[in-house]
Amino acid sequence: MTITSIAIVGAGVAGLHLGLYLQQHEVPVRIYTDRTPEEVARGRLLNTVAHHHHTLERERALGVHHWDAEEYGYVCHQHCVTGAPVTLRFRGDFEHPSSIIDYRLYLPQLMKDYLDRGGDMTFGVIDREAIERMGREHDLVVVASGRDARSMFAPVPDKSPHDRPQRRLCAGIYHGVRYSEPKGVGVHISLGHGELLELPITSREGFATALLFEAIPGGEVEVLADARYDEDHDRFDRLVLHTLEQHFPMCFERVDVASFSVQGPGDLLQGALTPVVREDYVQLQSGRFAVAAGDAHCVVDPVNGQGANSASYSAWVIGQAIAEDLALDELFCRRVARERQAFVTGVSDWTNMILNPEPHVVGLIMAMAENKPLCDAYTQNFNHPDRQWAAVATPERTAAFIARHTTNRASIVA
Amino acid sequence: MTITSIAIVGAGVAGLHLGLYLQQHEVPVRIYTDRTPEEVARGRLLNTVAHHHHTLERERALGVHHWDAEEYGYVCHQHCVTGAPVTLRFRGDFEHPSSIIDYRLYLPQLMKDYLDRGGDMTFGVIDREAIERMGREHDLVVVASGRDARSMFAPVPDKSPHDRPQRRLCAGIYHGVRYSEPKGVGVHISLGHGELLELPITSREGFATALLFEAIPGGEVEVLADARYDEDHDRFDRLVLHTLEQHFPMCFERVDVASFSVQGPGDLLQGALTPVVREDYVQLQSGRFAVAAGDAHCVVDPVNGQGANSASYSAWVIGQAIAEDLALDELFCRRVARERQAFVTGVSDWTNMILNPEPHVVGLIMAMAENKPLCDAYTQNFNHPDRQWAAVATPERTAAFIARHTTNRASIVA
Repeated sequence: MTITSIAIVGAGVAGLHLGLYLQQHEVPVRIYTDRTPEEVARGRLLNTVAHHHHTLERERALGVHHWDAEEYGYVCHQHCVTGAPVTLRFRGDFEHPSSIIDYRLYLPQLMKDYLDRGGDMTFGVIDREAIERMGREHDLVVVASGRDARSMFAPVPDKSPHDRPQRRLCAGIYHGVRYSEPKGVGVHISLGHGELLELPITSREGFATALLFEAIPGGEVEVLADARYDEDHDRFDRLVLHTLEQHFPMCFERVDVASFSVQGPGDLLQGALTPVVREDYVQLQSGRFAVAAGDAHCVVDPVNGQGANSASYSAWVIGQAIAEDLALDELFCRRVARERQAFVTGVSDWTNMILNPEPHVVGLIMAMAENKPLCDAYTQNFNHPDRQWAAVATPERTAAFIARHTTNRASIVA
Repeated sequence: MTITSIAIVGAGVAGLHLGLYLQQHEVPVRIYTDRTPEEVARGRLLNTVAHHHHTLERERALGVHHWDAEEYGYVCHQHCVTGAPVTLRFRGDFEHPSSIIDYRLYLPQLMKDYLDRGGDMTFGVIDREAIERMGREHDLVVVASGRDARSMFAPVPDKSPHDRPQRRLCAGIYHGVRYSEPKGVGVHISLGHGELLELPITSREGFATALLFEAIPGGEVEVLADARYDEDHDRFDRLVLHTLEQHFPMCFERVDVASFSVQGPGDLLQGALTPVVREDYVQLQSGRFAVAAGDAHCVVDPVNGQGANSASYSAWVIGQAIAEDLALDELFCRRVARERQAFVTGVSDWTNMILNPEPHVVGLIMAMAENKPLCDAYTQNFNHPDRQWAAVATPERTAAFIARHTTNRASIVA
């Protein structure tokens, strides 16, 4: 690439990983964001997303892996399914640890890294007009923001099956939940009511637990999506405890009821989102292109904890293409689209399937309960969402996935 | 993959590389072809295609690299452009040798390897009905044949810009041409008349030279496309000599006129082909899929010597996908299509551009004449047709490619 200049809209994980990558490769870059590091740090809980091994490897390559996954990470998924005649409990192990850092620590730290290394960052409101202006001042605009700007990229109908949220969400950071042994993410399913992700998070107060309730509309967990913490802290905490006891016993048994509470008023996030995959790029008035990344490209429900990983992967594909390719034209945009397609749509298709699982996927979860190598393979595929989608897309594929990871006991006996 | 069975139609380089790959990975496979090894060996010249390093690496992985490229290969492209005010001569070097083996040696040897390793091969005429039958007896059909069967895959209009051949071809194996030093392929261009590829080939008589004349219809080289060797051997040889002398002096100066002759009656191939890219796959009546490979998928003019390499690459993508994936369904077919797209369409788009070069590509060739690092990069990209297309697709890209491989002499002087 001859001397060129990249505009990045958004200072989330996609924008920062890309900014740091370009900085490392000496490509001129400017990040535009509407919030300063201080505002992010003192703001409301942003999410509770995990970074899986492949994302941590990119952090290491960028020199921004500040929380050693050996110390801060976790190594498995602890599964519990209730609401069936028999409660199922089982575990799947990762080959390498994953990690969850509160983004109010993570993002300001990476913004600081970027700025300390001489990075340009402009703070202010970003609307469509601002992006058109960037298209005149830069050679490429990467829109890596989930805010209004993303509407410039049209949804892709056949990858966006839903017109409304599939879950109502209540995420919060809590004291009083003992970690599982080995330390893992608790993946709790209460059939008909929703899921709970129990997440060993590093927050500004140190090790804590994030509870992300994924409430099916009309189910008994939905009460948490409407509960008002501000009105009555104790009542809110009791409601959460009651829900844990009723629906998520594997978590509840590690709760110290006396000390259980939301960490603080800003440590709660309630809402809902509609999954969508948008077009990869558009041409701006200047003739330059804007490429979508992160939430501007693909929004997934957090039930699989894949959003940040997909965003970081996408940023890396864009960064490598910028560093290697000869122009930032439509051929460049199509290259980016092609190279990230399997991964990003793998995340989206798999997550949409888990939200409304077909019978063969329910069967897969049942089979995982009885087959640890199978559950390990499914767990490890959190690093390979393209392979995970390939394993759940059809009943035939899931049967083959189960067969591949099943020891042939009959033949051993014989 | 659970136990499954693959049908391969065609025993060219795509069919054999795939058959050997599947054999190596213990996937049941049967090759269907209309010609025995003996018929291929004693038949007419099939082509004069080079195998570049990436293809030779796959041969090594398959244990079928029988002609050591260090001994039989070549290391550069020797360029000569005539018809402009000044004749240009320049060279581009490969990082690793390429190699040209007469397919009447190569294909029977690989068929023998496949059969010696226990491979199934069925000989007979293959029509559409036979392929439908394979679709009932096998789990996947890979059509890797340039014959009638390919018509089952529809052309892709925007990748198939031509409705007729762009060159008329006359390929033959000759005695009496001394190799260049270092040993290379001669890439001769006679502006307005066509190209000559002068190819150091290993034939059944040992080291020889293949001359592939690419005649522009209406130009002075076209006479070779119509000349009848069978009618008068000497007259044919004299016509070739005259054409070399008039249009391709860098070759002619290494000719020993006294001994110059076509190697034998079967060592000549005249014809023409229309470039086309076809759909990646179709569903058969049985519900199984047929995937196109090699000439059934993409036919390119031989001017860049890429056909066999693209076919082998495609075979490898298909083989890896079969060995790894969980089903041979449409998702599998789309995976294959995605993974080979940049390479195969790179070959096709680049070759179509070279047949009718836009001014910026003419300018690139002129620049290569004065800039060996640039010419080396272009030469090395015969192993990376996706990158080559990225370097010639637009004037801006070619300018950036030239700039990337040009030492800044001004700054050295300053």
